[in-house]
Parts: sequence; C-alpha cells; structure tokens
Amino acid sequence: MDTETIDSAVLNEEQLSLDLIEAQYALMNTRDQSNAKSLVILVSGIELAGKGEAVKQLREWVDPRFLYVKADPPHLFNLKQPFWQPYTRFVPAEGQIMVWFGNWYGDLLATAMHASKPLDDTLFDEYISNMRAFEQDLKNNNVDVLKVWFDLSWKSLQKRLDDMDPSEVHWHKLHGLDWRNKKQYDTLQKLRTRFTDDWQIIDGEDEDLRNHNFAQAILTALRHCPEHEKKAALKWQQAPIPDILTQFEVPQAEDANYKAELKKLTKQVADAIRCDDRKVVIAFEGMDAAGKGGAIKRIVKKLDPREYEIHTIAAPEKYELRRPYLWRFWSKLQSDDITIFDRTWYGRVLVERIEGFATEVEWQRAYAEINRFEKNLSNSQTVLIKFWLAIDKDEQAVRFKARESTPHKRFKITEEDWRNRDKWDDYLKAAADMFAHTDTGYAPWYIISTNDKQQARIEVLRAILKQLKADRDTD
Amino acid sequence: MDTETIDSAVLNEEQLSLDLIEAQYALMNTRDQSNAKSLVILVSGIELAGKGEAVKQLREWVDPRFLYVKADPPHLFNLKQPFWQPYTRFVPAEGQIMVWFGNWYGDLLATAMHASKPLDDTLFDEYISNMRAFEQDLKNNNVDVLKVWFDLSWKSLQKRLDDMDPSEVHWHKLHGLDWRNKKQYDTLQKLRTRFTDDWQIIDGEDEDLRNHNFAQAILTALRHCPEHEKKAALKWQQAPIPDILTQFEVPQAEDANYKAELKKLTKQVADAIRCDDRKVVIAFEGMDAAGKGGAIKRIVKKLDPREYEIHTIAAPEKYELRRPYLWRFWSKLQSDDITIFDRTWYGRVLVERIEGFATEVEWQRAYAEINRFEKNLSNSQTVLIKFWLAIDKDEQAVRFKARESTPHKRFKITEEDWRNRDKWDDYLKAAADMFAHTDTGYAPWYIISTNDKQQARIEVLRAILKQLKADRDTD
Repeated sequence: MDTETIDSAVLNEEQLSLDLIEAQYALMNTRDQSNAKSLVILVSGIELAGKGEAVKQLREWVDPRFLYVKADPPHLFNLKQPFWQPYTRFVPAEGQIMVWFGNWYGDLLATAMHASKPLDDTLFDEYISNMRAFEQDLKNNNVDVLKVWFDLSWKSLQKRLDDMDPSEVHWHKLHGLDWRNKKQYDTLQKLRTRFTDDWQIIDGEDEDLRNHNFAQAILTALRHCPEHEKKAALKWQQAPIPDILTQFEVPQAEDANYKAELKKLTKQVADAIRCDDRKVVIAFEGMDAAGKGGAIKRIVKKLDPREYEIHTIAAPEKYELRRPYLWRFWSKLQSDDITIFDRTWYGRVLVERIEGFATEVEWQRAYAEINRFEKNLSNSQTVLIKFWLAIDKDEQAVRFKARESTPHKRFKITEEDWRNRDKWDDYLKAAADMFAHTDTGYAPWYIISTNDKQQARIEVLRAILKQLKADRDTD
Repeated sequence: MDTETIDSAVLNEEQLSLDLIEAQYALMNTRDQSNAKSLVILVSGIELAGKGEAVKQLREWVDPRFLYVKADPPHLFNLKQPFWQPYTRFVPAEGQIMVWFGNWYGDLLATAMHASKPLDDTLFDEYISNMRAFEQDLKNNNVDVLKVWFDLSWKSLQKRLDDMDPSEVHWHKLHGLDWRNKKQYDTLQKLRTRFTDDWQIIDGEDEDLRNHNFAQAILTALRHCPEHEKKAALKWQQAPIPDILTQFEVPQAEDANYKAELKKLTKQVADAIRCDDRKVVIAFEGMDAAGKGGAIKRIVKKLDPREYEIHTIAAPEKYELRRPYLWRFWSKLQSDDITIFDRTWYGRVLVERIEGFATEVEWQRAYAEINRFEKNLSNSQTVLIKFWLAIDKDEQAVRFKARESTPHKRFKITEEDWRNRDKWDDYLKAAADMFAHTDTGYAPWYIISTNDKQQARIEVLRAILKQLKADRDTD
C-alpha cells in the first residue's frame, strides 16, 4: 500500500471505531424505553479462521466496558437439558452487547461430529429448526441475534497449521476436531451449510478484511431497529369459558377416609418422583385463595427439602424486566429433581395481559413461545404438570374474609387481591384462552376445582401420579 | 394433652407464625436503609433428626414468598475453589432470608469423613477458622449468619431407621454416611463438636419442640439488630506515599528492540499461562489514562478469547449494592483459566473511600477482608497478580487532552475523569494505604510506572512471568 492508501485505511478504522461506539451508546440509551434492545452475537467457524483475533480487534474498536465476551469450548448435548440451558443465564439485558464465542450451533456440530454416536440428518435438522424458533422468540422479546461464521478454505487452514508453533497446535486441537483430517473438514462444511444460510459468512483469508467485515456486521446489527408490531393483525377469538371454571359442587362433608387416602397418596407421589430419573416440574396457577400453598404442602409432605425446590413467583425486579419474560424461569430450571412453581411464566397471559403490562401482540404471541419452551423441556426428559386451581367467587370471598380475621394469615390478603377479584371475569377469559392454546400433549393442564379443599388436594396428587405414569408409558 | 393445653399450643403456634411474619416484613423494610440486613441460616445435623421437617414447618409459619430454601447434598472439597465458592451466588440480598440446607460445614464433614483420604485435625481446624472469619466478614457486610445443628442420639437414630420404610432408607443413605455404623456416628459427633460451640443445637427427639425451637431461633435472629460501629476507634495512620507514585523518569526514545521483545514476551506469557494448571487472576488498578487497556491488550495478544475472561468493572448496580461488596467479584471467579479485571474489589478502598460510599469503618476493615479473600483464592490453586499503573499528573493531562481531541477515543474521557483528577492526592494516599495493607506474599502488588508506555507494557508482561514462576516454586 502506498502512504495515501494506508492513511485512508487508518481513517476508515477510526471512523468504524467511532461509529461502533456511538451505536453502543445509542443501544444503551434504549434501556427501559419502548424500543429497548440488546444484541447477542453467535460466533462459530473453522479453526484458525481468526474468530479470536476478530473478537479481540472488536474489543479494541468499541468501548470495552459495554461489550461482554463469553467463550466456551463446545460441549456435547446433554439429553437432560435443552440446548439453550447453558446459555440463557448470559442472555444480555437491554442495552448490552454479548459475544457468544461458543454457542448452541457449536455444541450441535460437536455433537453431530462426535465419533462414537453421530446425529442423523433428521435429528440435526430438527435441532436447527428448534434453534431458529428460539432465536426468533429472543428477537421478538428484544434480544437481537446476529450469527457470524468464520470460514477458511482447506488449503489455507493447512497452511496456517503448518506455520503454527507446535505447542499451540496442541492447544487448538483441544477445542475441536482434527483439522488435519480432510474428511472431517468436509463433513463439517457440509453440516454447517445446513444452517448457515441466515448467517454472516466471513472469509478468514485476509486478516484486515476479516476484522473489518466482522465489526461492520456488528455495526449494522446495532443500527438495525427491529419493527415490533404494535397491533394484532386479527381480532382475537376469545375461547369459551369451560364449565369447570364456573360451576361448582357443594363441598361434601369431611370424608372419613380423607386422612388415610392423603397419607397413601403423599407416599406414592414421593416414591414415584424418587424412582423417576427424569426432572419433574410442577406449575401452579389459579385464582387467589384457591389453595396453591396447601396443595404444594401436600406434594412435598414425604419429601426432603434436598429433593425439591419451590419458587414463589412475585412481580419481576427491574433487572429481570430488562430481559425476555422467560429469562427468570430459565434460570430456575437447573435442578435435577423436582421444581415447583407457585405462579409461573403464565403470568404473561394472565396478569400481564389483564393489567396491560404486555401488549396485545405480546401476550397473543406468548402462547406459542410458551409451548415451544415447554416442548423443549419435555424433550429434555422433563415431566411438566400444570395445575389451575379453580374456585367459586363466593367461596373466595369467604376465604379472603377468614384470612383478614386471622392475624397470622393476614399477610396473605392485600388490597391487590380485592382489586384482582374485581377483574374476576377477565381472569376467567384469560384462563380459558390459556387452556385453549397451551393444553398440549407434552404439558397438559389439570383444572382442579378447590371449593372442596380436601377433595382438591387428593385430585392434585392423583394427577401427578397419572402424569408421571402417562409420560413414562409414551417415552 | 387435655383440650386446654392443645388450645394453648395452637395459640402459641399462631403467635409464633405472626411474629415470624412481622419480623420478615420488618427485615424487608430495611432494604436500602442504613440498618439493612439479610439473614442466611446454615442447617446441618444428624440424619433423621428432622432438619427437613423443621424447614418445611418453618415454610408454613412464615410468608413463603420471602423465604428461599437452597438444598444441596454435601460435596467433597474441590482443591481448586474456596469453600465458599459454591454458595456465594446465593448470598441473600438485603431484606431476604435464605436457608442453606447443605453448606460449607456439611462439605467439610463429608470431606473429613471421606474414607479414602480423611483430613487431619490441623487442616480441619484451619478450615473452621477460615469459615468463621468468612462468616464474620458476611456479618460485617450486613449478612447475618445463624447456624443450626439438629442433633439426635445414637439410640433414637437407630430407632428411626428401624421404623423407616426400607425404600426411604436407601434414599437417606445417598445423602450421607452409613448411619448404622456407630463408629462413624461417634467420629461425626466428635468432629462437629470442634465447631458447633457457636451454633444453635436443636434436639431432634421431640418433633413439636424441635420445629418450635428452630423457628424461635430464626425469630430471634431476625429480631437481632447488629450494632455496626459508626466511627473508627483509632485515628487512621496514613502510610507514606511511595516515591514510585510521584517520581517519574523522562520517557526514553523508542527502543529499537521494543517490538521484538514485546513479541517474545507475549508468546512467553501465553505459553506460561497455558502450561500452568492453576487459575490465574490478573487485577488492574491505577490512575485514569495510565494504560490499563493497553496492558491488557498485550497480555491476551497470543491467547484465544476462549482462554480468558476480561471483566471491566463499573459502578455497581442496585441489586449488587444490596449484597456485600465482594459479591459481584465472587461470581466472576468461576473460570478455570485466566480472569483479568480492569478495576477490581479495591474500589472499596479507593473510589468508595474517597467518595464516601464506604464509611470510615467499612474501608478500614476492608483491607483485612480483601486479604482473607485473596488468601482463600491463593490457597485454591489461584495465582493472583495485582498491578497498579502509576502515571505523572502532567502526563495524565496530556493523555486526557489527546483523548478529547480524538473522536473515537472521546468516550474514554468524561467530566468524572476530570473530577477524579482534582482528587489526585486523595488517590495517592488511598493507594499508599492499599499497598501498605494488602501487599502480601500470596498476592503482591506490582507498581508500574507508565509514563513510558512501551516500557510499562514490557514490565507488566515480565511481572506476570515472574509471579507465575515464584508461586510455582513455593508450591
């Protein structure tokens, strides 16, 4: 290059750096705004194509205080967790940029190329399609996703291996495949073309161009303002309200056998859960005072606290609101045993719908998002059991008043509960829609009428036994 | 019991529940106040003494939305992480109550009782003393710690094992020792008496009394208002300011060998770090514009982003401020490779001291807290290398102005940097005190004069090589 060309290259670099920094600050300023966004960059590619160098160069061009780089060597899929599980903890908050050097595609390739048990094409494509659906859900929930593949020809790769210090080759081999094996290289290239059509492909041949193109791709992604639909395209079709939500039988007199039956069932539930090596997730929703706490108490009766986790879900904190609404649930699903939720991700289509915390477009989209989420869990050896505890409106009033007049139960009843009661019909409608759209084969709803508390507890335990058995039979 | 006794027991229970709930709410109301507090309850004890039942009962008496229960089976100590590492992520935020069913004492007992390599008494006692020091640090930083041991006599334990369903015995054995082995039982009791003198001992014999005493202990802990010293007892002895912070040589002309030397050293550093199986933590502090970013860039020059993590530390977020100041660093020390900090936990004794974000008592206490923290890391196969980058005040002004006049570097300089510059002498004094109190054999400070940028980068790399070698030689 002559002096002039060099000068202009330097100028371009400085301009790119400036543009990136400005775009970073603009991104940060979207925090808590209606156009809020974060950006996650999935980086994968051929070894020695210069991914690492490009990320390092990027770090020098941007304000490094606001660029997070997470790097993992690829790990083989674990059948007991969805592909997104190792990563969701690092989903960036509004305003943040995160580079995932190592991501679910890297894991998929590693799993597919694994010598002892390669994946067949059908399963591979199914993973791709699940990953894309998950990324679309992220995008819809304000996490923009940019995917960058660093490519390198076989010839250049061999040349770079030749030129390398042998001590480093050793290390590089640790992170991947045998890059001297042409057949493996070809297989990898063939596999990756099954998913990289929506990726930015960066040629690793020329270092400067590579770094520049990578940064430019990020700049474009930062500047991209996703258009979020503000209004639903179609008028919403309200589902009919099931009779079980409105028609209640008069509670029976105490059944003489109740205690014995309860004891038997709590023991059976504990045994069934213990001898099941799948994860179990039990989710409770329902009207206030319908007895969620009491039902949970009976489920864990014969279990030890080391065998379960109970999450009582309240309104999200600010740092949670800056991420997709499922984020705070993803992180609560790490346990290998039983996880019980007292209120759940269905808040999106219940309280958030009714109170207007989610837009019409958002809550209407959430049914499919939640179904995908639950399907992912179900495919990862997780049994999902969802309960809606139904109660008669008059009976609720009786229980509210009883709580108010019992000092140590008064905390269970607040002004907000009475306000929610005023929206009784809205909750019935939201529940009806929820059943219509999320009662799936892999995660069915059990609607339990709780006017008769004792009967309800028995039914909850029986439902758990039934679902554990049903899922096992179809496995 | 006659009817009257039963009634009075029920009344007492209701009163206890009410008291607990009120204490919970009072705790929550301390959030963000000067008397803010959280409570962590360590639960350990003999199997079948009823720990699980007592925790379950507690959950029924309190408002379960604000009680977090974390339960882990004991795990053996991992020599590469401090005993607190698996737990710190769960240190409660102000206003929260957390029960740790399974904790570092359980891990210690499991490790000590482990058949193949039991711990000797000296090491055991050293762990105890480290644990107590760590708990005291938690308490000083507003996390109150209550320790509860559930005890049970050998005779009662055997009786309960006899009465158990055999299927459950199997499960219980999983979580611990062979509870049919009297010798093991005796060893365990002997070991635990080495540390339980500051524990609440709860006799597991009588179920009701056990649950009541456990809840009562928690109530007392909740009501306990730790007295935090507001004023330091003694006048602070300011350390003399080392010459290296104030006396600078004139930068030399560019050394013709600089590039070759830099290249050689970056390669040596990468090799040394790679072939070292310890963790490496590199911490940077120093005046603004002293070249932290540039030094970090050279350290990682020959490394791949999958081999290191860089954390650029900014002001803490609100959810971080609700926990001990070390909390946000604990969670950033999980990596097995190299972790680099651009600004560190020393913010406590630098900016927080100078700006008054930490009280006099707090920053003066922090030196010992930080030393313990670093000692724990150092004892866990972690090499700590700490840099202070020093710069001449005039040279800083030159660099500030250069930043201001370079568009893509302008983000590096803000009003705040100029304000900090006005406090130059305060920072010198704080740095001098920091060296005086935290320059330890296991985590020494390297003070690097950076007026000559090139020389400084060379010195940083050499210091890393030196420290890696020094630590290895003493291991």
